[in-house]
Amino acid sequence: MSGAGRAAGPTLEDVARAAGVSRATVSRVVNGTRNVAPEIQRAVLQAVSAVGYVPNLAARQLITRRSGVVALVMSGGDADDPSGTSGQAEPRSQDAQEARALAEFGAQVFADPFFGRVLTGVLAHLGPRGLHPLLMLARGDASRTQVVSRLRQGAADGALVVSIDPADPLPRRLVQAGLPTVLFARPEQPLRAAYVDLAHQDGGRLAAERLLQRGCRQVGAIAGPLALHAGRARLDGFCDTMARHGHAYVPVAVGNFTQDSGEQAMRELLAQQPDLDGVFAGNDLMAAGALHVLREHGRRVPEDVALVGFDDSGAALSCRPRLTTVRQPVEEMAAQMAALLLETLDAPTAPPRAVLFDPELVVRASG
Amino acid sequence: MSGAGRAAGPTLEDVARAAGVSRATVSRVVNGTRNVAPEIQRAVLQAVSAVGYVPNLAARQLITRRSGVVALVMSGGDADDPSGTSGQAEPRSQDAQEARALAEFGAQVFADPFFGRVLTGVLAHLGPRGLHPLLMLARGDASRTQVVSRLRQGAADGALVVSIDPADPLPRRLVQAGLPTVLFARPEQPLRAAYVDLAHQDGGRLAAERLLQRGCRQVGAIAGPLALHAGRARLDGFCDTMARHGHAYVPVAVGNFTQDSGEQAMRELLAQQPDLDGVFAGNDLMAAGALHVLREHGRRVPEDVALVGFDDSGAALSCRPRLTTVRQPVEEMAAQMAALLLETLDAPTAPPRAVLFDPELVVRASG
Repeated sequence: MSGAGRAAGPTLEDVARAAGVSRATVSRVVNGTRNVAPEIQRAVLQAVSAVGYVPNLAARQLITRRSGVVALVMSGGDADDPSGTSGQAEPRSQDAQEARALAEFGAQVFADPFFGRVLTGVLAHLGPRGLHPLLMLARGDASRTQVVSRLRQGAADGALVVSIDPADPLPRRLVQAGLPTVLFARPEQPLRAAYVDLAHQDGGRLAAERLLQRGCRQVGAIAGPLALHAGRARLDGFCDTMARHGHAYVPVAVGNFTQDSGEQAMRELLAQQPDLDGVFAGNDLMAAGALHVLREHGRRVPEDVALVGFDDSGAALSCRPRLTTVRQPVEEMAAQMAALLLETLDAPTAPPRAVLFDPELVVRASG
Repeated sequence: MSGAGRAAGPTLEDVARAAGVSRATVSRVVNGTRNVAPEIQRAVLQAVSAVGYVPNLAARQLITRRSGVVALVMSGGDADDPSGTSGQAEPRSQDAQEARALAEFGAQVFADPFFGRVLTGVLAHLGPRGLHPLLMLARGDASRTQVVSRLRQGAADGALVVSIDPADPLPRRLVQAGLPTVLFARPEQPLRAAYVDLAHQDGGRLAAERLLQRGCRQVGAIAGPLALHAGRARLDGFCDTMARHGHAYVPVAVGNFTQDSGEQAMRELLAQQPDLDGVFAGNDLMAAGALHVLREHGRRVPEDVALVGFDDSGAALSCRPRLTTVRQPVEEMAAQMAALLLETLDAPTAPPRAVLFDPELVVRASG
């Protein structure tokens, strides 16, 4: 790219002079060493830009064995339709098929405000350090293989992985390939990888306590997928707390964290228990769906039915009434995930760290 | 990274044997040449994975001068609070301040379902080609400088830019630096860069025709920012069509494409024109806000007031009633934007291309 004048261009010395620092300091900044004070880093980068110095990342990477890039992988386990069925297709249409499958998965992933919050947190942590995430989608074996092989080739120094499928083999494959890997949410099977997560069970407890405190007598729950720790633990915490207060029976309908599934689950709950006066939904999107169905059935929220969501995502604010919800600080968790990866890169043999965040009840209008 | 065994590891020949293709073909795939049939590319990548071949991206990049990476920059012009004010702060807190500013901007950007659709389209086009986007946020001069200098260093072969500020200097700086650049939406000032865009004015016309066809007699419009071509042209197309049908006066309130601003604008319209029976909102988020306010005022949608949105984003489906809206095929536009960048990389001196998409009316329940 734009290689013109690179040979005879400005040197490291020119930058050092312009920034008023030593050549060694410029070199450290340009090579992405992280223990340089941010204001010096900024001064050097401004001098780099002012004198038009163009260091070559590829040459640097050969020497440092660091790319300065971190992969952020949204991983979805296996597609419903395994790739083997496309054997008969034309080359063009196979390509188009793969694009379609990725588009479908991408649409599913990015429809959830959760992922925008993850991106926000990761970018906010990496940006001031001059690092940027390489965004990758993985679903199905072919795309997993591609992700692993790109990373082994040095496309990124390590991976931040957000997996939405409990059976997803990607985290294990990355760890087995010796690639520094940090997960959002604990792995379903023991795995030697650092992760950030929420104390989900405590979140379920907070929701139950809120509904009890409002005087609800007959509560139901809309759970997320029970194969996912987050789905299971939020429900467990909720039901445990109800039991601790003497409520033996909590009707439960299971959704998949989408608004549509929340609507469906709310219909099931109402059919099963028409006199419900409180509902806990395992995330805000499902709560938003429940809200539509309750309105359809002429139930006022919160007067007739109190509703508590989970996440404190944008969906909680765009509903009317606004949702009372259990906050998961996704942005901070994602920033911490990025921090853990940088830690791992600096000390690859240290035992992997877990950082658990505490949920918080946010009281608004719905319950 | 995981350099163990790299020296004595499997060779290109081993991969060629496993894939049943020539060494030259393996080399073309591994070096990211794009004119290899997708099924051959897939076979080679599978063989690469099977034999555990690890080519070195940095070495390849030094030879090919291609990184195989494309930058996707979300650019926001200048922050409200210019960075100069932080001169007195501690180094730590300056870093934290930058992280906070990025987090704020990221939250704003990713709260709009538009950006998830852009990511989806870009990933769907690049994925089957073995390419991945490097995600960058730029707001304020320091982060723009950083983005430009990273790209000049070879961090990516070119940039896809989504700018939300008409005065954003980033597109021009990238073009002036000689970096291949493709924009989502036409630049506000003439600039030698390829772009994709929508025929926004036609979209406004479709919305007007729909409301007229429903028999609306007194319509109002909630416009997006008038400094943005998209905001202006949608409104112009709407008002022109109303005029063409004899309606001289259309009350207008201006929002900024957020749900909150849509609520505010709807209140203004109702105060100004209490007998409204039709509303065109410049995007779905503002329409969702308008819907809340109409409900609050006891106006039934669509019986009392017909409402037409714009975009056909997830927001159109999560509202009740679901929105009649003008579809902007963002995913296809973003995929085309990525395709234009690959074209530009292959033929850097060709005149920049524009690809304009046609909007489409999607009739649902709201109008």
